[in-house]
Amino acid sequence: MSASTQELWVAPERLEADLRALAALVETDRPGWTRTALGPVGLAGQELVRGWMADAGLDATIDGAGNVVGRLRGAGQGNRAIMVGSHTDTVVGGGRFDGMVGVVGALEAVRALREAGCELQHDLVVVDFFNEEPNEFGLSCVGSRAMTGDLRREHLALLDDHGTTLGDALGRVGLDPDGVLRARADLSHVDAFIELHIEQGPYLEQHGSQIGLVEAITGIARFRALFGGRADHAGTMPMDVRRDAGCAAAGTVLAVERIAGEGVQSKGTSGQVTFTPTAVNVVTASAEFRGEFRGPEGAWLRWAQEQLSAAATQEGEQRGVEVEVEWLPLQEPAPMAGSVTSTLAGVVDDLGLSSTRLFSGAEHDAAVIARRVPAGMLFVPSRDGRSHCPEEWTDLADVAAGVTALTHSLLALDGESR
Amino acid sequence: MSASTQELWVAPERLEADLRALAALVETDRPGWTRTALGPVGLAGQELVRGWMADAGLDATIDGAGNVVGRLRGAGQGNRAIMVGSHTDTVVGGGRFDGMVGVVGALEAVRALREAGCELQHDLVVVDFFNEEPNEFGLSCVGSRAMTGDLRREHLALLDDHGTTLGDALGRVGLDPDGVLRARADLSHVDAFIELHIEQGPYLEQHGSQIGLVEAITGIARFRALFGGRADHAGTMPMDVRRDAGCAAAGTVLAVERIAGEGVQSKGTSGQVTFTPTAVNVVTASAEFRGEFRGPEGAWLRWAQEQLSAAATQEGEQRGVEVEVEWLPLQEPAPMAGSVTSTLAGVVDDLGLSSTRLFSGAEHDAAVIARRVPAGMLFVPSRDGRSHCPEEWTDLADVAAGVTALTHSLLALDGESR
Repeated sequence: MSASTQELWVAPERLEADLRALAALVETDRPGWTRTALGPVGLAGQELVRGWMADAGLDATIDGAGNVVGRLRGAGQGNRAIMVGSHTDTVVGGGRFDGMVGVVGALEAVRALREAGCELQHDLVVVDFFNEEPNEFGLSCVGSRAMTGDLRREHLALLDDHGTTLGDALGRVGLDPDGVLRARADLSHVDAFIELHIEQGPYLEQHGSQIGLVEAITGIARFRALFGGRADHAGTMPMDVRRDAGCAAAGTVLAVERIAGEGVQSKGTSGQVTFTPTAVNVVTASAEFRGEFRGPEGAWLRWAQEQLSAAATQEGEQRGVEVEVEWLPLQEPAPMAGSVTSTLAGVVDDLGLSSTRLFSGAEHDAAVIARRVPAGMLFVPSRDGRSHCPEEWTDLADVAAGVTALTHSLLALDGESR
Repeated sequence: MSASTQELWVAPERLEADLRALAALVETDRPGWTRTALGPVGLAGQELVRGWMADAGLDATIDGAGNVVGRLRGAGQGNRAIMVGSHTDTVVGGGRFDGMVGVVGALEAVRALREAGCELQHDLVVVDFFNEEPNEFGLSCVGSRAMTGDLRREHLALLDDHGTTLGDALGRVGLDPDGVLRARADLSHVDAFIELHIEQGPYLEQHGSQIGLVEAITGIARFRALFGGRADHAGTMPMDVRRDAGCAAAGTVLAVERIAGEGVQSKGTSGQVTFTPTAVNVVTASAEFRGEFRGPEGAWLRWAQEQLSAAATQEGEQRGVEVEVEWLPLQEPAPMAGSVTSTLAGVVDDLGLSSTRLFSGAEHDAAVIARRVPAGMLFVPSRDGRSHCPEEWTDLADVAAGVTALTHSLLALDGESR
C-alpha cells in the first residue's frame, strides 16, 4: 500500500449526488425506480455514466454489447488490469441501490485514488454492465455474458410475450445484434475483478455487520411448468372426473415452496401464473407458471429439480392433467476466488470494518466474470433485507463504508499482483 | 290430450337447420361458438330469433330488457298463459347447444302444435331470455331477472375490468338502462314455465337416460379472495421470513377443491388468478382469484363458505399474508315445482322415453322464473358431459326427443290447468 493511502477519503456527498441523479432517470409510467436496460431510459442511463467516467478522468467508451467501459492507465509494464463494476439497470418496480452502488462506488474510488495521488500499476477498468437484471426474454447478465463470450446467437432468438426476439429488442436500443455477439473481450490480461453491491437480503443487518464477504454466488435452476386439463362447466362436471389444470398448477406452486424449505440457504419462487380460460364458471383447461430454485450447492439444485418434476407429475396424475416441466440450463453456483476474498477480508479488517462471510442468493455479473477472471464481491447491508422493490434502502454511511473498502481493495490487489 | 296429438311430430331437420343458423352467427375473433349477449353479434341473434317467431305465427317483440318474447293466443278465457324458453347467448369459447336447444325447441313445439291443428286454451309465451350467461360484470340471467323484477339499479353499476358499468354496456347494445329496470312483467297470469336445456354434465349419458327431470337448480356462493404479502428479492429473502401472497393463494385454490369434495353433488372452482408482480425473481406481493361453490343445499353452501374463509385465513397466517375473502350474496338453490315436474314425468313416460330425476349444477333462467311461477326443466344428454367449450355436443336424436317431450308437456300443462 502506498504512503498516500492515509489520505484516501471517499466523499459521501458525491455518492449521494450520483445516486440521486440516477434515481431521477426513471420510466415515469412504471412503478418504483424503474430503468430497464431495454427500455427508453436505459440509453440515457448509459450516457450519464459515460459522462461521469470521462469527468473522473477515465477513457470511456460503450462497447458493442452496451457495456459502459472506462479505463485508467496504470504506471506498470505489461498492460495488466484490475476490473471493477456493476450495473445501473433495474427490474420493473425496483429500487435505487441494486447495481447503482457498485457503479457509483467504482467511480468514487477512481476519484478518491486520483485525489490522493495514488497511481496504480495496473490499468483500472470500470464497467457499468449492460442489462444485468432478467429482461422480458428471460435472460440476465446480457452485457457480462457478451464480454466473456457466453452470449450465443440462440440467445438472440429468445422471445418475449409479444413474440419479439431479444435481437430485435437490442436493435431498438441501438445495439447491432451481431455487434453484441462480437463484443467478447480478451480478459486474459485481467488479474482480478471485484464488485460492490447491496446484499438484497437481511443477513448483514441481522448480524450487525458493515461488510459482507461473498464466498459464492447462487446457482439457479429455472423452469416453466405447463398443465393441460380440460375445460368443463363448473356447475355440472363432478369433482372426481374433472381435469382441473389450475388445481394441478396450484399444487405445484406449493411444492416449490415446500422443496425450497428442505435445503440450506435454498430458495424457491413461483410467478407468471396464468389459468386459461380465466372464467370462474369454467374448469381451468390449461395453466402455466414459471419457477426457480436457488442455492449454494449444485447437488442440492439437481435434487430440487428431481423433486419438483416428480411433484408436478403427481399433481397432474391425481387429476388426469398432462404436465410438462421444461428446465432451463442449470446455472451452477459460482465460487468467488479464495485469493481475492482473502485480500478483501484483510483490507476490511485493516479498516476496522465489521464483516461477515456469506453466500449471495442473488445473481451478479461477478458470477459470469468469475468464470474467466479471479473475482470477489463486497456487500453492504439492505434495510429489512428488502430489494427489487421501491422500499430498497441502504444508509449512506453503509454505502460509504463499502466504497472505502472497495477503494482500498483496489490498491491492495494492485500491490499484490504487481 | 286432444285427439290430434297423435299427429304431433317434431321435425329434426328444422331443429338442425335452426341450430346451424345460430352456430353461423358468432364472434369470429373469439374461440369456439361465441355469441355473447353484450357483444356485437348478440343483437343479430335476437333479430334472427324474432324473425323465426314471426314465421312460426307468434306475435313477436323484444322487451325493454332485450328478451325476445313471442305470444300465441290461446282459445280459452281469462288470458292465462304458459311460458317456455331459454337463451341464445353463449360464454366466450362456448358451444352450439347450451341455451339454443331450448329456444329452437320451443319454436319447433309451436310449429308442431300448429301443424297438428292443436289449439291451446292458454296463451303460449315463448321467450329467448337476454344474457343468461355470466357477463364480464359478474352477472348472469340479466333478462329473466329484469322480467321478474329482480334486477336492481345497483346491478347497473357493476364494473368490468376496464371500469365500464353494466348500464353503459347495455346502452352499447341498444338497451336503455332505465328501460331494462322497467321491463318487469306481470307474471301472475302465467300458470307454468318450462325450459328445455342440455344437461351440461355426464349424468344422463352415464345412466343411459334420454330425458332428465330437474328437481332443483343449484345454489351458488361466489367469492373474491385477496392476498397481501410483500415483494422481495427471490434469491435473497429466506423462505421462513418471506410473505409470499402467491403461495397463500395457491393454498386457497387447493382448499376450494378439497372443500367441494366434501359435499354431495357439490362443486368448487377457482379462476381469474393473478399474481403481482408476475416476475419469477420477485416474491409475489399480492395475489387475487375468484372462486365459487355450488350445491343443492343452502346449508352446505353456508358451511363451505365458513370452511373456505377459515382455510384462506390459515394459508395467510402461516405466511404473514393479509387475506380478505369477499362473498357475493348467496344464491339459494331453486327447487322446481313438484306439480310441474310430475306432469313432465307423466308425459315422458307416456312417450316411452327413458328418464332420470336429477339436480342441475348449472344456473338457468328457470331458477329465476321459479321464484314467481311454478317451473320445471327437461334436460337432454351432453356427450361426455362437456359444456361451455367448443366440444359441447348433443345428438340430434336426443334434441328431437327432448323437443317432443317439451311439445307434449305444453299440451299436458294446458289441459291440466284449463
